[in-house]
Amino acid sequence: MKKQNNDELVFLPLGGSNEIGMNLNAYGFGPAHARQWIIVDVGVTFGDQTTPGVDVIVPDASFLEGEDIIGIVLTHAHEDHIGALGWLWPQLRAPLYATPFTAYLIREKLRDADLLDEVTLHEVPLGGTINLGPFRVEMVTITHSIPEPNGLAIHTPLGTVLHTGDWKIDEDPVVGQRTDVETIRRLGDEGVLAMVCDSTNVFVDGVAGSEAEVKAALANLVGSLKGKVAVACFASNVARVDSVVRAAEAAGRRVALVGRSMHRITAAAKSVGLLKDVRDFISDAEAKYLPADQVLYICTGSQGEPRAALSRIADGTHPHVNLSTGDHVVFSSRVIPGNEIAIRNLQNKLSDRGVRLYTERDHPGIHVSGHPCRDELRQMYQWARPSIAIPTHGERRHLVEHTQLAKEMQVPHAIAPRNGDMVLLAPGDPSIIDEVPNGRLFVDGGMLVPEAGEALRERRHAASNGVLIVTFAIDDKGRQASDIEVRGLGLPGDADYPLDEALDDLADRAKEALKKMDPAERNDEEAVEGAVNRALKKASQQIWDRRPIVETVVLRV
Amino acid sequence: MKKQNNDELVFLPLGGSNEIGMNLNAYGFGPAHARQWIIVDVGVTFGDQTTPGVDVIVPDASFLEGEDIIGIVLTHAHEDHIGALGWLWPQLRAPLYATPFTAYLIREKLRDADLLDEVTLHEVPLGGTINLGPFRVEMVTITHSIPEPNGLAIHTPLGTVLHTGDWKIDEDPVVGQRTDVETIRRLGDEGVLAMVCDSTNVFVDGVAGSEAEVKAALANLVGSLKGKVAVACFASNVARVDSVVRAAEAAGRRVALVGRSMHRITAAAKSVGLLKDVRDFISDAEAKYLPADQVLYICTGSQGEPRAALSRIADGTHPHVNLSTGDHVVFSSRVIPGNEIAIRNLQNKLSDRGVRLYTERDHPGIHVSGHPCRDELRQMYQWARPSIAIPTHGERRHLVEHTQLAKEMQVPHAIAPRNGDMVLLAPGDPSIIDEVPNGRLFVDGGMLVPEAGEALRERRHAASNGVLIVTFAIDDKGRQASDIEVRGLGLPGDADYPLDEALDDLADRAKEALKKMDPAERNDEEAVEGAVNRALKKASQQIWDRRPIVETVVLRV
Repeated sequence: MKKQNNDELVFLPLGGSNEIGMNLNAYGFGPAHARQWIIVDVGVTFGDQTTPGVDVIVPDASFLEGEDIIGIVLTHAHEDHIGALGWLWPQLRAPLYATPFTAYLIREKLRDADLLDEVTLHEVPLGGTINLGPFRVEMVTITHSIPEPNGLAIHTPLGTVLHTGDWKIDEDPVVGQRTDVETIRRLGDEGVLAMVCDSTNVFVDGVAGSEAEVKAALANLVGSLKGKVAVACFASNVARVDSVVRAAEAAGRRVALVGRSMHRITAAAKSVGLLKDVRDFISDAEAKYLPADQVLYICTGSQGEPRAALSRIADGTHPHVNLSTGDHVVFSSRVIPGNEIAIRNLQNKLSDRGVRLYTERDHPGIHVSGHPCRDELRQMYQWARPSIAIPTHGERRHLVEHTQLAKEMQVPHAIAPRNGDMVLLAPGDPSIIDEVPNGRLFVDGGMLVPEAGEALRERRHAASNGVLIVTFAIDDKGRQASDIEVRGLGLPGDADYPLDEALDDLADRAKEALKKMDPAERNDEEAVEGAVNRALKKASQQIWDRRPIVETVVLRV
Repeated sequence: MKKQNNDELVFLPLGGSNEIGMNLNAYGFGPAHARQWIIVDVGVTFGDQTTPGVDVIVPDASFLEGEDIIGIVLTHAHEDHIGALGWLWPQLRAPLYATPFTAYLIREKLRDADLLDEVTLHEVPLGGTINLGPFRVEMVTITHSIPEPNGLAIHTPLGTVLHTGDWKIDEDPVVGQRTDVETIRRLGDEGVLAMVCDSTNVFVDGVAGSEAEVKAALANLVGSLKGKVAVACFASNVARVDSVVRAAEAAGRRVALVGRSMHRITAAAKSVGLLKDVRDFISDAEAKYLPADQVLYICTGSQGEPRAALSRIADGTHPHVNLSTGDHVVFSSRVIPGNEIAIRNLQNKLSDRGVRLYTERDHPGIHVSGHPCRDELRQMYQWARPSIAIPTHGERRHLVEHTQLAKEMQVPHAIAPRNGDMVLLAPGDPSIIDEVPNGRLFVDGGMLVPEAGEALRERRHAASNGVLIVTFAIDDKGRQASDIEVRGLGLPGDADYPLDEALDDLADRAKEALKKMDPAERNDEEAVEGAVNRALKKASQQIWDRRPIVETVVLRV
């Protein structure tokens, strides 16, 4: 019989699986009743048109609350890896570990959440090692689309897990170091028990391509243009920003940064020695006084975010940047799924101003992905040779496809856990041994609320169907003591049937419903509200073929 | 001085420009004060997550109401070309002209709108000619992704316009005829004044590819699969349906159609002699009793439409079709912009059931576009050699790019009108001579309402911010005569600050606002409502950092 006190090594994805964004992974070591945990990444994802009023979504980490968490390691500074720290640290309450660039941006985040004084944040050098109880975590330099991306070699008495983080194989990442292939190979030689690996591009053949290729393409493109040039890219891709700056310098253009996060991230980059030898940026206000051919803007807003720089330029509401016929906007970025409509609207507005657009679709060299395509995944499996493949960081179909690829690469075991599936990595054959509470929490009105919460459900219902408000007073004998007032929110009228008329008719229907009630019942507000609700829902169905939220308020006077 | 009574030929796009969908184009002939009009296509577009509660959007054709419209010609049966007939015909009131397959589906539409007895619908043979006052309209057979696509050669005393409709150059369209190149060349030889042309794929190099290639790819793919196979495609692409049926027959599979529009369109196809020599379809109920390897479903729902067949299969709620591990879903379709999120959710649900997916991204041969890519556009310009290029059927950036391409093709004039721009085609140089009322109308609650209407604006506001309802009674002296009742819709609470507590606090704030009022004012319901609204908006901002719709109802008792 299996001893209950055996040490076990488990992996628990809470936000990292079944999502392209929002990473929160936990590794547990020890006997089942007394596990010690380390957490890898605490990220957010963002709301979209299906979650009106909800901009930020975080993993539900309630399972870990009160567990013995001995450290939180952040692989890199993208929002889907560090963005939920401000929301979730108060539940997790463990020291943080990150390399300098990541640590700089984490400090900003903690400051915003008023947590800076409470949290211990350890800065780890690139390639450094963190000792956390039974875990020895080795930072492994990889390449991605942000400075200082790290994979983690998590050594435990039961074996080593290679947690890749977000990665690609970039032979010339423009800024920062190349992938530390030596270390990955060495880990493979020593034996990798499990590899927990990025699945974003598992459906894409070949390789993602190098930042150096983008650098060359941008230099060519910018060099060929007359008029003002604006380049939209992710601020966190400092290599990209660097490439754009070099392209501008080669073309005799001064660079102005436009958008708050451009300023924020370039400051972080400079703090770790990046972007050091570039000419000073000018302000967008100064840039106005330069000839069109001598200026280049690097802008936020490639995803069509309505308040970002590029949307304001497209709307003609930016105080300092004005683009029109003869000018150019280069999208050195991809379309993040969910942003298609916003980006399309943005691009049509720019086009309408006469601005010429360049996107990766029509100019394939001007963007590369930061995630590994199939050939890179194969290469990584050849280097690391894990016994267990655990695809993560992908939607369900990505994870499923990734297990197929791992099997093709002769990996003995491949498991695609769902969020909340606890995977036993050792001892014995890997398997899913538990399912813990999991899910997503929505930041709604400044509060953390359940994903399927009442408030959003009501807002969605109101968005599609509108709201009817019915009020009247009854006296202590249950007699109607005021007019019946009916108001509609989000309900249409037309020339044949104006809204006022519809609301009058609905008031009549409410009156009829009231009359039909048993006199005894009429003294019961809840019964009255229920009867009126039913009558008005039915009437609304006849008028608008929809069922608005009907809110009947009966006042007792 | 120009004579006011000169005949002019004008082109007026009302829904056909600045949109990928929703075509409504008008051609006017005669002196400016007495134009005769023909209309080409009367299409819809569909709502998305940004238009909650609005599924159907139609062009605002109010400018044409009361004008001398002598005929409405429908190029083909796609919804973006015929879908608004039921909504707009009562304004336009002119006879309809269409080829048989299109006419069949128009009749269905008119029947649904209770207009069948009112409308005259002329069936025109393929290649036929329609004489409409000064217009002689020649149907020109082209190829597209639906049976019987037509371009129109619109002959007038001032020259010929080639209105392409939706087209591509398919050497082997599987069903129906090939592009009538002879006629297009002949028109070019005789002289084409203007070409009004599809811009959908102007950013795509090369050619769209042939349905015959898809047929081969589907036969290969389906032939290689074990387990149940479902193929999702657009029902209106009868060639595609035909190809899937042949692939199934070759693989020894019986075919079941799943989804209402599959049945509807295949009936239309059979009425014009298509799909004649295929084995009878079986019902989805019968298919259940066949071995998995002997059945193939052709499904609606490739766009993730929640009520379509494929979504119900993915949800496990379809009464007859159950797919799981070992089964396959082939998406022989593209992602229509705006549907990305819905399709992603659908595919993840299927993947979660263990179903293997095949999309054009990972299996490029299984879908081709129905619209011309750049090489096809160049070919068409070489055949038709128009004096004026008028790009239509595209977003703004497509139209702008298309004018560039036309200029490269040596077309003397290229104009990209916006919706509502009246383009003078002849006599003299082409130019935009007027801007008429235009826009989009939303079908909202069964009514046609303006695009920027109050109802949708309120619903969107409610979707992001929620609704607060405040009610109380005052007596004839302006004294509060009931409790203050506050209810929230779509407003969250959490453990630290439950919603009930927030609503109680808001009731207190309403009470304070009331107390602060001048006693004289308190007798004025509107003033009371205004004061309470202001107080509660401010309080909501403090609680939730948002501004809900506050609806205060003061009853007089």
